[in-house]
Amino acid sequence: MQKPSFDPGLTQQVNGALRRAINKDGSFNVERRGTSWRDIHPYLHLINASWPAFLSIIFSAYLVVNTLFAVVYFSLGRGELQGTDAPSSFGRFMNDFFFSAHTLTTVGYGIYAPTGIEANSVAAFEAMVGLMGFALATGLLFGRVSKPSARIGFSPRALVAPYQDQSSLQFRIVNLRSNVLIELQASLLLMTVEGTPLTRRYTALPLERERVYFFPLTWTVVHPIDESSPLFGKTPEQLQALQAEVLILIKAFDETFSQTVNARFSYRYDEIEWGAKFSPAFKIDGDGDMILEVDRVGEFARVEAAGR
Amino acid sequence: MQKPSFDPGLTQQVNGALRRAINKDGSFNVERRGTSWRDIHPYLHLINASWPAFLSIIFSAYLVVNTLFAVVYFSLGRGELQGTDAPSSFGRFMNDFFFSAHTLTTVGYGIYAPTGIEANSVAAFEAMVGLMGFALATGLLFGRVSKPSARIGFSPRALVAPYQDQSSLQFRIVNLRSNVLIELQASLLLMTVEGTPLTRRYTALPLERERVYFFPLTWTVVHPIDESSPLFGKTPEQLQALQAEVLILIKAFDETFSQTVNARFSYRYDEIEWGAKFSPAFKIDGDGDMILEVDRVGEFARVEAAGR
Amino acid sequence: MQKPSFDPGLTQQVNGALRRAINKDGSFNVERRGTSWRDIHPYLHLINASWPAFLSIIFSAYLVVNTLFAVVYFSLGRGELQGTDAPSSFGRFMNDFFFSAHTLTTVGYGIYAPTGIEANSVAAFEAMVGLMGFALATGLLFGRVSKPSARIGFSPRALVAPYQDQSSLQFRIVNLRSNVLIELQASLLLMTVEGTPLTRRYTALPLERERVYFFPLTWTVVHPIDESSPLFGKTPEQLQALQAEVLILIKAFDETFSQTVNARFSYRYDEIEWGAKFSPAFKIDGDGDMILEVDRVGEFARVEAAGR
Amino acid sequence: MQKPSFDPGLTQQVNGALRRAINKDGSFNVERRGTSWRDIHPYLHLINASWPAFLSIIFSAYLVVNTLFAVVYFSLGRGELQGTDAPSSFGRFMNDFFFSAHTLTTVGYGIYAPTGIEANSVAAFEAMVGLMGFALATGLLFGRVSKPSARIGFSPRALVAPYQDQSSLQFRIVNLRSNVLIELQASLLLMTVEGTPLTRRYTALPLERERVYFFPLTWTVVHPIDESSPLFGKTPEQLQALQAEVLILIKAFDETFSQTVNARFSYRYDEIEWGAKFSPAFKIDGDGDMILEVDRVGEFARVEAAGR
Repeated sequence: MQKPSFDPGLTQQVNGALRRAINKDGSFNVERRGTSWRDIHPYLHLINASWPAFLSIIFSAYLVVNTLFAVVYFSLGRGELQGTDAPSSFGRFMNDFFFSAHTLTTVGYGIYAPTGIEANSVAAFEAMVGLMGFALATGLLFGRVSKPSARIGFSPRALVAPYQDQSSLQFRIVNLRSNVLIELQASLLLMTVEGTPLTRRYTALPLERERVYFFPLTWTVVHPIDESSPLFGKTPEQLQALQAEVLILIKAFDETFSQTVNARFSYRYDEIEWGAKFSPAFKIDGDGDMILEVDRVGEFARVEAAGR
Repeated sequence: MQKPSFDPGLTQQVNGALRRAINKDGSFNVERRGTSWRDIHPYLHLINASWPAFLSIIFSAYLVVNTLFAVVYFSLGRGELQGTDAPSSFGRFMNDFFFSAHTLTTVGYGIYAPTGIEANSVAAFEAMVGLMGFALATGLLFGRVSKPSARIGFSPRALVAPYQDQSSLQFRIVNLRSNVLIELQASLLLMTVEGTPLTRRYTALPLERERVYFFPLTWTVVHPIDESSPLFGKTPEQLQALQAEVLILIKAFDETFSQTVNARFSYRYDEIEWGAKFSPAFKIDGDGDMILEVDRVGEFARVEAAGR
Repeated sequence: MQKPSFDPGLTQQVNGALRRAINKDGSFNVERRGTSWRDIHPYLHLINASWPAFLSIIFSAYLVVNTLFAVVYFSLGRGELQGTDAPSSFGRFMNDFFFSAHTLTTVGYGIYAPTGIEANSVAAFEAMVGLMGFALATGLLFGRVSKPSARIGFSPRALVAPYQDQSSLQFRIVNLRSNVLIELQASLLLMTVEGTPLTRRYTALPLERERVYFFPLTWTVVHPIDESSPLFGKTPEQLQALQAEVLILIKAFDETFSQTVNARFSYRYDEIEWGAKFSPAFKIDGDGDMILEVDRVGEFARVEAAGR
Repeated sequence: MQKPSFDPGLTQQVNGALRRAINKDGSFNVERRGTSWRDIHPYLHLINASWPAFLSIIFSAYLVVNTLFAVVYFSLGRGELQGTDAPSSFGRFMNDFFFSAHTLTTVGYGIYAPTGIEANSVAAFEAMVGLMGFALATGLLFGRVSKPSARIGFSPRALVAPYQDQSSLQFRIVNLRSNVLIELQASLLLMTVEGTPLTRRYTALPLERERVYFFPLTWTVVHPIDESSPLFGKTPEQLQALQAEVLILIKAFDETFSQTVNARFSYRYDEIEWGAKFSPAFKIDGDGDMILEVDRVGEFARVEAAGR
């Protein structure tokens, strides 16, 4: 059987304690080395950059391009640019700089204006550069703002809870946003460190339900701990010794973005609560309306004698 | 077997009468509480906002930004901005405000124009802000206009109709728009309230056909009521007692949007017609052409002795 | 078994000869009646409109909006708009009209310029309207130009060709464009008219291969005519009597558009060639390079004794 | 069984040596002939054109459109355009040309400005053309920059390596970029030339794992060479005689692009290393952090007695 899985690479060996594989923000805890600058994709970097970095880059590029064109205008004769004469070189340069800004943004007040053929040619070129450059800048800006993303709330702890005469591993998710997600799909992998030499192992954890059509309320994702489960018969101490971490991938279709969105999460052995079950996070009010309490997604109650 | 399904959350208990789960416009009848402002995504809110709200926000932002820049220009010396002098402070402020508008929109008539370094610097910055800001506004505007959506017409009533020596639950859909939808897929869930304590249950209703390739005419979605159906042997009175609601998800690929689009709908127990079958909603005219009558999607005729 | 299929609607009855269901350009031969104007989606109509219609609408909207604003400017006092005075009313109106155009396009030469508060307010509003309106127009223009589409060349005739000791229905496709399509998928439906009363029937035709990963050359789509095929033992005359039409849906992933694209086609009984097989449409030249001859996609040769 | 596959076209016959089917950059080694200019899609060509070609086309179009409008303005009376008079025809034409540039880019300094009805009409039209045209140019520019693409690093050589008491064909991939790819899927086809007459054959090579959920490290794609494998019992010499080439398609979901991306690659018989296995390309440092060394994706070590 060909099972989709996280690839072990066949050769992973570990010595000593491991950091978690998936950070709480969904990123992977992996440092990359040996990459080449030729593989850098400027668009991807600018889309993923922080807001201060992005805005600084845009603003700096604006200053640099204006300065470069100002140098060109400054090098032309004064008769080329109407209205930019000034008593000092600095004043003339600043006027050239502002003429450049008027041109690059296509605002073109006309207080400074090209009269000679050279200045006019440069300005005609600069206006085109401005339109193209701002299209890139604004496209990136809008791409950042409209980038599809999901905001899935995970219960802070996974539970080992009773389930149909046996035990189960459960966690609960909720849509933190009010937009509509449909066709959710969950995939779980158990990551352990075991064997001699110590090797990372990845085992898929089958779910009671892999998909739900609708997601207006909460979804309790349930892995039944039956005989076939790698968690069967394990104690909390054993999971700690195995440095167990449950890796989670949630996929959904976002109706507003009209795109597939993803969320990653993980629970480590010390984030699993044994012998508990989730309390309902929604209720029906007197009018028959359902009320979802988003911030109660992690609420659970202890149960006695939870089967393991 | 892992069946995709609406998740019961394992713990839903209800007391008393329920409102319908899916409203007639496809939205879920769920009120959300306990959400955090940090989970609000401005893009999603502006895309989903009503048109009056959206246009008001854009127009207000335009006024506010112009006012802020006008205050800055007003605070600069009069020598900084050519043509904005006026007999009164109000007149000067209004000229500064309009100069700001000329700059923000990059219209730049030049009747008002920056001459000093300070005004020129602010104006160069404002023109950039204008280009970036209007890119957001127009991107949102176009995003709203071009947002993929389907307009599926559902028959107002579902029918319990004879089907191959047995009974079936049927409803009929039509594409209310003239653009091409292909690869339609339908998913049905029966929601009931039963047991002690009263619990919501969700059962998938298998279909005679889950998918059709083409959708130029109507599609009659058929759930055969055989022994394995949760509707088998049920009377209208029993469905009412169970507060039965059939939840429907339709997916399709829209050729014009080049995107997957969705439609949701539901039929409650009191929207099911017993012992009827749909009348054809299209005909062949004398030239052999098919004619689809979109507004007849819900037409049905009574049948005697409809098997249940 | 739930087989995806074209839905018969259960009640289709036909009398007399039928036009083909899918036209040669891939559109469906269905006339729609009873649609409501409330279901019209302006974006979809403007994206699908012909080029002359689209450009006329854009140009007309430009004239109408300019005229409306010109009427407003004309109604204001002459002192409000610098440079627009003229000996005649017509001249004044034209100047107002052109001032409006300078503002709507944000070109703003300044030869006409607002000086009064009223004209300035209207112009500030018009510049915003211009930016928003042209964003819609240019977004639609670019949406039309960049709309994903496939240009699949189908062999003009389908063949009944020998295939592994039996017969088969074959047709051949080629990518008419040079961009890369991957993961092609083909679906075939046989549409017939039979029974009493005459009813349309749709039967899926299973394929020897439903998908190919790559599509640099041609793909010969093959339906084996074995005992389970609805075409088994049929003669050309019988297919004519059944008014048989093979409906085809091709899906592919376009690498340049990064989107799924589709093509539809159909072969009627009189477009099927009996006892022929496709000639190769590509060759290997002396250097070991493959050469694809796109225009030979439909070339076939007669075979004697083609099994039926 | 209907297996997805590369289509043989049923009739491929080859004489002599073949070039590789998939080039190292992922393109297909196929020359296309007999295409029609009517099937050319300008958008696809401009998106796929080289950067120098694209920029030249944009710049040339800018010059051509300006020249055309300059000719129109030049043909109008001198009284129509304020400020464009000059001692020579050349000077007047250049002024008209620059006025056109000021209008097309909507920079509109006003140093040249339309005063007559004819010049104003042409300028109003040109400003609209400029907005629409630059929308196409900038849309194409941004479409090129933001085009989804994957940069998958393949090990330069595929290995025949031991795998669970048998042999296997392996290659290793890594994400050369730092953005997140999820849900990778690999498909392998073995292409051989054999039989009389010599015919190309394509056989799917099943994988130990077809999909992985996450891809933060490397993925070693493994085809087990068991009895059912077409590589079973083959020697390097036999693969050379068969001109064997392993065609590879990798699909993944790119989180930043929110799109499916692809990569193609192939290994020819002379790019397969017999009796070797990959060395780990990542390590765990003292803090338990994983460190991926991207440039070591191809590193392998010889193994003695590699089973074939």
